[in-house]
Amino acid sequence: MDSALELVRTGRAAAAMVPIENSVEGGVSATLDAIATGGPLMILGEQLVPIRFVLAARPGLGLSRVRRVSTHSHAWAQCRQWSSANIPDAEYIPASSTAAAAVGLLAADCPYDAAICAPLVAEQRGLNVLAEGIGDVEDAVTRFILVGLPGPLPAPTGSDKTTLVVPLPKDHPGALMGILEQFASRGVNLSRIESRPTGQFLGDYFFSIDIDGHLAEERVADAVRGLHRLSPGLRFLGSFPRADRRRSAVSGHNGDEAFRQAHEWVVGLLEPA
Amino acid sequence: MDSALELVRTGRAAAAMVPIENSVEGGVSATLDAIATGGPLMILGEQLVPIRFVLAARPGLGLSRVRRVSTHSHAWAQCRQWSSANIPDAEYIPASSTAAAAVGLLAADCPYDAAICAPLVAEQRGLNVLAEGIGDVEDAVTRFILVGLPGPLPAPTGSDKTTLVVPLPKDHPGALMGILEQFASRGVNLSRIESRPTGQFLGDYFFSIDIDGHLAEERVADAVRGLHRLSPGLRFLGSFPRADRRRSAVSGHNGDEAFRQAHEWVVGLLEPA
Amino acid sequence: MDSALELVRTGRAAAAMVPIENSVEGGVSATLDAIATGGPLMILGEQLVPIRFVLAARPGLGLSRVRRVSTHSHAWAQCRQWSSANIPDAEYIPASSTAAAAVGLLAADCPYDAAICAPLVAEQRGLNVLAEGIGDVEDAVTRFILVGLPGPLPAPTGSDKTTLVVPLPKDHPGALMGILEQFASRGVNLSRIESRPTGQFLGDYFFSIDIDGHLAEERVADAVRGLHRLSPGLRFLGSFPRADRRRSAVSGHNGDEAFRQAHEWVVGLLEPA
Amino acid sequence: MDSALELVRTGRAAAAMVPIENSVEGGVSATLDAIATGGPLMILGEQLVPIRFVLAARPGLGLSRVRRVSTHSHAWAQCRQWSSANIPDAEYIPASSTAAAAVGLLAADCPYDAAICAPLVAEQRGLNVLAEGIGDVEDAVTRFILVGLPGPLPAPTGSDKTTLVVPLPKDHPGALMGILEQFASRGVNLSRIESRPTGQFLGDYFFSIDIDGHLAEERVADAVRGLHRLSPGLRFLGSFPRADRRRSAVSGHNGDEAFRQAHEWVVGLLEPA
Repeated sequence: MDSALELVRTGRAAAAMVPIENSVEGGVSATLDAIATGGPLMILGEQLVPIRFVLAARPGLGLSRVRRVSTHSHAWAQCRQWSSANIPDAEYIPASSTAAAAVGLLAADCPYDAAICAPLVAEQRGLNVLAEGIGDVEDAVTRFILVGLPGPLPAPTGSDKTTLVVPLPKDHPGALMGILEQFASRGVNLSRIESRPTGQFLGDYFFSIDIDGHLAEERVADAVRGLHRLSPGLRFLGSFPRADRRRSAVSGHNGDEAFRQAHEWVVGLLEPA
Repeated sequence: MDSALELVRTGRAAAAMVPIENSVEGGVSATLDAIATGGPLMILGEQLVPIRFVLAARPGLGLSRVRRVSTHSHAWAQCRQWSSANIPDAEYIPASSTAAAAVGLLAADCPYDAAICAPLVAEQRGLNVLAEGIGDVEDAVTRFILVGLPGPLPAPTGSDKTTLVVPLPKDHPGALMGILEQFASRGVNLSRIESRPTGQFLGDYFFSIDIDGHLAEERVADAVRGLHRLSPGLRFLGSFPRADRRRSAVSGHNGDEAFRQAHEWVVGLLEPA
Repeated sequence: MDSALELVRTGRAAAAMVPIENSVEGGVSATLDAIATGGPLMILGEQLVPIRFVLAARPGLGLSRVRRVSTHSHAWAQCRQWSSANIPDAEYIPASSTAAAAVGLLAADCPYDAAICAPLVAEQRGLNVLAEGIGDVEDAVTRFILVGLPGPLPAPTGSDKTTLVVPLPKDHPGALMGILEQFASRGVNLSRIESRPTGQFLGDYFFSIDIDGHLAEERVADAVRGLHRLSPGLRFLGSFPRADRRRSAVSGHNGDEAFRQAHEWVVGLLEPA
Repeated sequence: MDSALELVRTGRAAAAMVPIENSVEGGVSATLDAIATGGPLMILGEQLVPIRFVLAARPGLGLSRVRRVSTHSHAWAQCRQWSSANIPDAEYIPASSTAAAAVGLLAADCPYDAAICAPLVAEQRGLNVLAEGIGDVEDAVTRFILVGLPGPLPAPTGSDKTTLVVPLPKDHPGALMGILEQFASRGVNLSRIESRPTGQFLGDYFFSIDIDGHLAEERVADAVRGLHRLSPGLRFLGSFPRADRRRSAVSGHNGDEAFRQAHEWVVGLLEPA
């Protein structure tokens, strides 16, 4: 997925769809880190993809002969219950992706017997599906983001999300509260917050944050300006329509009209007619 | 003092100097309430006046014959120690002002024998000063404000104060915290907060608030905009130079430059070149 | 009223009923200050008293001859509308109480012609009632508190109030927020907050605070302990039944049972069986 | 590492030392999740281990022939710079641990040529060290925790750390602030906060939190009680001496003595002598 984003950064691809969050395993660290550093990127949209898994093997190999199974660790975690019941003695061999695990089965010296992957991949590669629907979690879902180069923002729809990367200003008790206060004082709701290390030393973090609303909405712009003052290394990763179409809950005194009136009132005080 | 403000409101006086706060007795309710309601006024400046008191009587009356003393209740409170030691049995007769008490002594049927007032008043009225410097409190001071009609604000000096009247949005635990948060999230310091009843029912308040800084400073304007959203009935009473010349303490991330950079950063995100 | 509290302090009276708050004029500074300093006292209960006023004069004097009116400033403020309409040219002479103004009328050299006072007082003194029901405000009410010496607290009723006097720890933006946070973090509702000067210098305050609930309730005791740490000069003025019988709103996680469970859980961690 | 903790849970091992945090790659999700759920465990101590890496291969294979390298993803991340410079075309094959990658080299059909692992492992397995000290980051460190079964806490040393697992109460803007407020209102410093998914649905989190201090210290016990009320599913993972011996910074009003005095003061109010 790193390489997909690299294609975007170098202009060889217009956009890339990469997983960022998974209802079972949480944030996809590689994506979170890749978009938080390096050349600037922008999230243009998101997609929720139900998670379905099959156990696939080379043609001819039956379930009873499966000793070693490879897949991405997220997928392995989501099929633990089925595995324990049906292939309790199978050893797990990690892979960088479910697709890579599936493709690996085709190599002559493949060190494992089966792969957990998406149904489509199994079909395309001509693999033998030993079991279907082996995921444990109902409504398991992966959230993908569509990532491109920075440019004009998609127009606000009233049901938008904004993604930010906020370096923690300082290592003191109030630093995170100071950040959250910028949202709270404008009634901006957080829907996701993840801590990620900067890689410099223990306790040196940045936060990857999703908030309800679009930067073109005043309460969001005002909170983002507040964050910029506290943490000027802040990175804005885009405002885009929510996949679930849930509209932002905005109380009257945090609506655009309240911001506009407050602005005009202060202008009138500073420049009386 | 009500009438002094009324002269200003009706254009018969350009400005009035009225006491608003006293280091011994606290806020002057009559002034706080008079500028918080009615026709709009603006504070143009402030002055700290040391408090000195004399005990004055009609010519011919000695200290030993003083039975009843009149003065404003603030003044009486500030001379309690001297009174207890020197005229312990004297009865207190309240007056609307120290000057009024002094003038009253000249009337034929005056119900009291002596008045506590300012040295100048005693001299002008030809009263007999029985004792000088009778105030208890070293460094006692009254803060006066110069009040005129709304107009252009005095230019910022780096050592300014802004006065606001903020109706409490609702009777819930977080309402006052919500107000204070608007200041805290911009690093704006409060130097005075007083609760005053609106007169409607018990528990219905407004707050009279002084903050460090001038409305022309970004952190102040931003906090005031935030207050306007929470409590649109907010009244702005002016930004003016502090009498004590103490400069506002502003950390880097709350300075005008940080606000300007944050503003431009967001503009750049919304309207990419 | 000062003297009533003094009688209690010196054991000459078991308790005194004094006004503390008035729906029109706000906190009664004299009471707030008198119970906040000096020998310790305790509030045992409260009473809401509707405010009714009459204009009383010496027998024989008609309304048309009233030139000067005396009363307590609170009462004068509450009858302003009636006065403007009926005795617009009358001069106001302040008095220390409505009763004192009424009694004063009986003196030979009384400098005023009429007094605003309670109906009962006018009747008892044989005064001539020139007008009744002259108060402007419907539902105007004075809250009285019953004050005695410290002792066992009245039992909790589920509808109680606790009164505290909290010196402001330090003159910094967060000091008041730190105090309010002690309440907010235990879900304790504030029903009254008043700033009062300590009398030392401008900006040196204490806060007189009423909160919902009884000290015997865990969330209140916990908040009070928190305040004591921040401001050890804190004064506890009692927990007593509310006059309006409104029950305290307490969410589950701030109820006594939640505190008890939290306490036992930590005890179990520190002293494993 | 899961299995090491399982040995502890089933009583087959007295304790296990497992990595929990890494200055380069952040929290070790597997450990964070394994101690946050399942049978209760307790952290008894911590150790900071400098990170050193070697590139090891089967005897006879030179650096120029290395095409595919396996190691744990954390280790791969930490040697990216060296790899880019010295083996820029090498493909990365993920392994569940650096040791597993090293051991794998000994298998006949090993799909990779070299492993990044600790010097000791390379030596023990008789591998050929192609390069030493290939880690990018000066002072890179892994924090290990010593995990055992719940029991008496280690005695406080004045330089302790407490680890908690706090399910996010509800998905609303104030939930995380409510948690942080429990620490802030007792002056308790956070040194680590990580969000981890519960695995149920997107946006359902718990937080893994380290705070300064020992549960036997009053401010910590009080904050933990507050958290228990907000989030009764809270898990306490132990109080133990800090590896870096840094003493907790405790202001006077959050010290044990301040808590003891506040406690006794309230006891005295509730049970007057």
